[in-house]
Amino acid sequence: MKKSLIALAVLGACGAAMAQSSVTLYGMADVWVGKQKTEIGGVDTSTSVLQSGGFNTSRLGFKGSEDLGGGLKANFNLEGALSVDNGTAGGFRFDRQSWVGLSGGFGEVQLGKPWTPYDDTRAMANDTFNANFAASWGTWLGYEDNPRNTIRYNSPNFGGFSGAVAYSLGEDRAISATDSSSSLVSFSLNYANGPIVVGFAHQAEKVESAVPVYLDAPNFLSDAGLTGKTTYNLLNGSYDFGFLKLVGGVNQVKISPDGLGDIKANEWNLGVDVPVGAGFDIGVGIARSTRETGGVDFEEATGLSLGAKYTLSKRTFLYGAYQRVKTEDLLLGGEDKSTLFGLGIQHNF
Amino acid sequence: MKKSLIALAVLGACGAAMAQSSVTLYGMADVWVGKQKTEIGGVDTSTSVLQSGGFNTSRLGFKGSEDLGGGLKANFNLEGALSVDNGTAGGFRFDRQSWVGLSGGFGEVQLGKPWTPYDDTRAMANDTFNANFAASWGTWLGYEDNPRNTIRYNSPNFGGFSGAVAYSLGEDRAISATDSSSSLVSFSLNYANGPIVVGFAHQAEKVESAVPVYLDAPNFLSDAGLTGKTTYNLLNGSYDFGFLKLVGGVNQVKISPDGLGDIKANEWNLGVDVPVGAGFDIGVGIARSTRETGGVDFEEATGLSLGAKYTLSKRTFLYGAYQRVKTEDLLLGGEDKSTLFGLGIQHNF
Amino acid sequence: MKKSLIALAVLGACGAAMAQSSVTLYGMADVWVGKQKTEIGGVDTSTSVLQSGGFNTSRLGFKGSEDLGGGLKANFNLEGALSVDNGTAGGFRFDRQSWVGLSGGFGEVQLGKPWTPYDDTRAMANDTFNANFAASWGTWLGYEDNPRNTIRYNSPNFGGFSGAVAYSLGEDRAISATDSSSSLVSFSLNYANGPIVVGFAHQAEKVESAVPVYLDAPNFLSDAGLTGKTTYNLLNGSYDFGFLKLVGGVNQVKISPDGLGDIKANEWNLGVDVPVGAGFDIGVGIARSTRETGGVDFEEATGLSLGAKYTLSKRTFLYGAYQRVKTEDLLLGGEDKSTLFGLGIQHNF
Repeated sequence: MKKSLIALAVLGACGAAMAQSSVTLYGMADVWVGKQKTEIGGVDTSTSVLQSGGFNTSRLGFKGSEDLGGGLKANFNLEGALSVDNGTAGGFRFDRQSWVGLSGGFGEVQLGKPWTPYDDTRAMANDTFNANFAASWGTWLGYEDNPRNTIRYNSPNFGGFSGAVAYSLGEDRAISATDSSSSLVSFSLNYANGPIVVGFAHQAEKVESAVPVYLDAPNFLSDAGLTGKTTYNLLNGSYDFGFLKLVGGVNQVKISPDGLGDIKANEWNLGVDVPVGAGFDIGVGIARSTRETGGVDFEEATGLSLGAKYTLSKRTFLYGAYQRVKTEDLLLGGEDKSTLFGLGIQHNF
Repeated sequence: MKKSLIALAVLGACGAAMAQSSVTLYGMADVWVGKQKTEIGGVDTSTSVLQSGGFNTSRLGFKGSEDLGGGLKANFNLEGALSVDNGTAGGFRFDRQSWVGLSGGFGEVQLGKPWTPYDDTRAMANDTFNANFAASWGTWLGYEDNPRNTIRYNSPNFGGFSGAVAYSLGEDRAISATDSSSSLVSFSLNYANGPIVVGFAHQAEKVESAVPVYLDAPNFLSDAGLTGKTTYNLLNGSYDFGFLKLVGGVNQVKISPDGLGDIKANEWNLGVDVPVGAGFDIGVGIARSTRETGGVDFEEATGLSLGAKYTLSKRTFLYGAYQRVKTEDLLLGGEDKSTLFGLGIQHNF
Repeated sequence: MKKSLIALAVLGACGAAMAQSSVTLYGMADVWVGKQKTEIGGVDTSTSVLQSGGFNTSRLGFKGSEDLGGGLKANFNLEGALSVDNGTAGGFRFDRQSWVGLSGGFGEVQLGKPWTPYDDTRAMANDTFNANFAASWGTWLGYEDNPRNTIRYNSPNFGGFSGAVAYSLGEDRAISATDSSSSLVSFSLNYANGPIVVGFAHQAEKVESAVPVYLDAPNFLSDAGLTGKTTYNLLNGSYDFGFLKLVGGVNQVKISPDGLGDIKANEWNLGVDVPVGAGFDIGVGIARSTRETGGVDFEEATGLSLGAKYTLSKRTFLYGAYQRVKTEDLLLGGEDKSTLFGLGIQHNF
């Protein structure tokens, strides 16, 4: 009951003999102050910034669960990102999670715009506390983490094993009514037992129109005006020794533009999180993404991240963050660099 | 007490001896999966979709009421539509209801962007549970259901009779400061007593500028860049026999473009809702809209809808939906068709 | 405890042994009906309007505070403006306040998009209840009241004295990464003791790029495509005699476009608020802004405002509002006038 997610026991709005309900209003405000430096084509820039979402993306959400009897529940979640530094200037929407569904002994079904299973596995065992400045986030290729028009199924937990699968109809991505739609498939199989966590996840994103109108995440193909398919295969895990936690993963990305040769990325990351005591935790991560086409490596990104947390309460902490990413042109030589350093506060409510 | 239905017993935020108040946070998440087919000009298209608002429009709202003593109350309601399938990608706003006002023995006054009385009467006795896929919604001509800059008055209930009137100043619709404003008038007279419900409603929409900038609903005149007036007259009702409920209505629309001949639409619908037991309800509706100008019928739209609800709780149900609309060109021949079929879930919170 | 601002005793959503927290959901709905008239260049216009924010800007907000022990608190506030008359058609965002921070014996730090200290002092002792139609708001030059990317510090209260300072990094205002950023500095020193309130505040806004992309408030320089600096110096205060309250202030604005001569505005206002009894309060204000360049006065704006409140409860009141502003061209002669008159309701929740 302390654990209850219940927040606002809200009096329902649709009738006299209303069943009891609950809505949880929750959120996170995360702001940091720091420096962003880039060295691109030999030109250095440095900007002092105050920004939202240093450690995790600031957010505001509403969620709830209704007991339907017999172990069945109706669930919903509406959650949107906040830009605390500018008042969410682009307008608030429920761009993080937006779904309704049922759960029970069979598992759970979510309909709407849920996270993909691939994204969950990415977050489950990632370096540097899976903070937004983790080496892997700055280094690995991007993907669509919460597609529209999606059906997701989460299995029950079988002795530590759990799986999930999501399919996105992608009807909004067609440029004309006669186009066949783009689509996304994602699934995961995870194992968590005591100190050990292991996951495998796959995601395949099809772009069937050269001008997809509703991709919410960067996509190599649609950015280049191409059609084709991008697949991701991730194996990661962590082991908690108590005095430190080791995390790491390998990820393979294959971009297959229609009528052109494939581009592949081989990616890995490694991290160590250490509870150093007196409220402090330190995390370090390294990550690399090597891109090749036709058997020739042409680009390599390498990232380093360092994070420190100082816990003020279960809901609030201060942090320091450092990330450095170097992207090398393996054919022509030359490298671009970006560095960020900051101090911030995260408050959960 | 944990289970209290009341929501946020909010103690207000603006003074020492604050009166006690309450804000209700409420909403609805409605998502369905199905097929949309169209046959336009002999070209067939079919799209598999996962969409928000199959049965009713998904929404999130805040409302409250303050007892001012002597039977007087201050009331407000802020409610916006959700697109659960895409995270409300266009940005969340209070586009459904947004008003503040007073109520008491004299009735109720609402100032802002309330529903029109015509819209309420439409919804009061409509076919197929007044679901979004009801035959009438797919077939009849559109209208402005919640105009801006509006004053609405609701009468008290006199032995089953109640009325309402709304006037929209429409100051935002002028294209220049020297234009006279557009405006909207809507009123209704309804009677509800035991099994019988009858309503009459009228709405008149004036478009006084060929490029009105702030029309929130489709409007034949402004879509065509014309000025003029559109009027709607609706008579509808329902009778609940217990084992089935009969609903139906007739609606007349007159579009009067300045300097051009009138277009009239004669519209009707008929529906039967049946509680078949074991948690199931079935509703069927048919509707037609015949459009004429200069005494000649030139277009006719005919719709059929079928809906089934399976109740999981007072707040949650599953549904199946079917709608087919055929629009015939009565002068040249030829017809366009659209069909939708889907299965969905609606959860109220 | 009746007086507690706490609204939703929310049990947080992020862990088992969650500390207890609270989120306050609050807001204000303010709508009025009236007339707006302008006389510009000899052309009269008059529009009947129903609008939001007659007395104060309508709003919806979420705020909370967590006790971290030892007098330390984590605080956040997310608050956005509402346009109740049109359903906040531009999309809801947290454009009024958006910040997270810490408070304790040392004072308070806010990170994000807080109000500036200058703005707080403006509001602290302003004519005509500091209503939106106060003479000073219609007459004095505008300024940025809640800039982005801002750090604000509020001192503790020392025997009635309190101060605040804010610095905005303005990194978003640069048009290119190589531009140096624009910035804003604001500070205040206020004294409040019994019937007397006195404040001094300063604000300096730098525009370092001719096309600043993220200015949230009107700015003479950026509106004219110029770079440079604008400074504001305000001294104001009020004295409450019980049967009436006298308020007034003087404000100096200096606009310094790079490479051009300065423009200065000398501004003052004066107001009297009278509690006339039986729930009525009346406020009157006059204000003037005289603009000069090169030692020559070239423009003068003079405003008169009159407001009446009728209290229905601690949270709700009715009001009448009148404002008239005349802007004279002191070189060529001629004057523009604007008048508004309205009746409205404000409800706080």
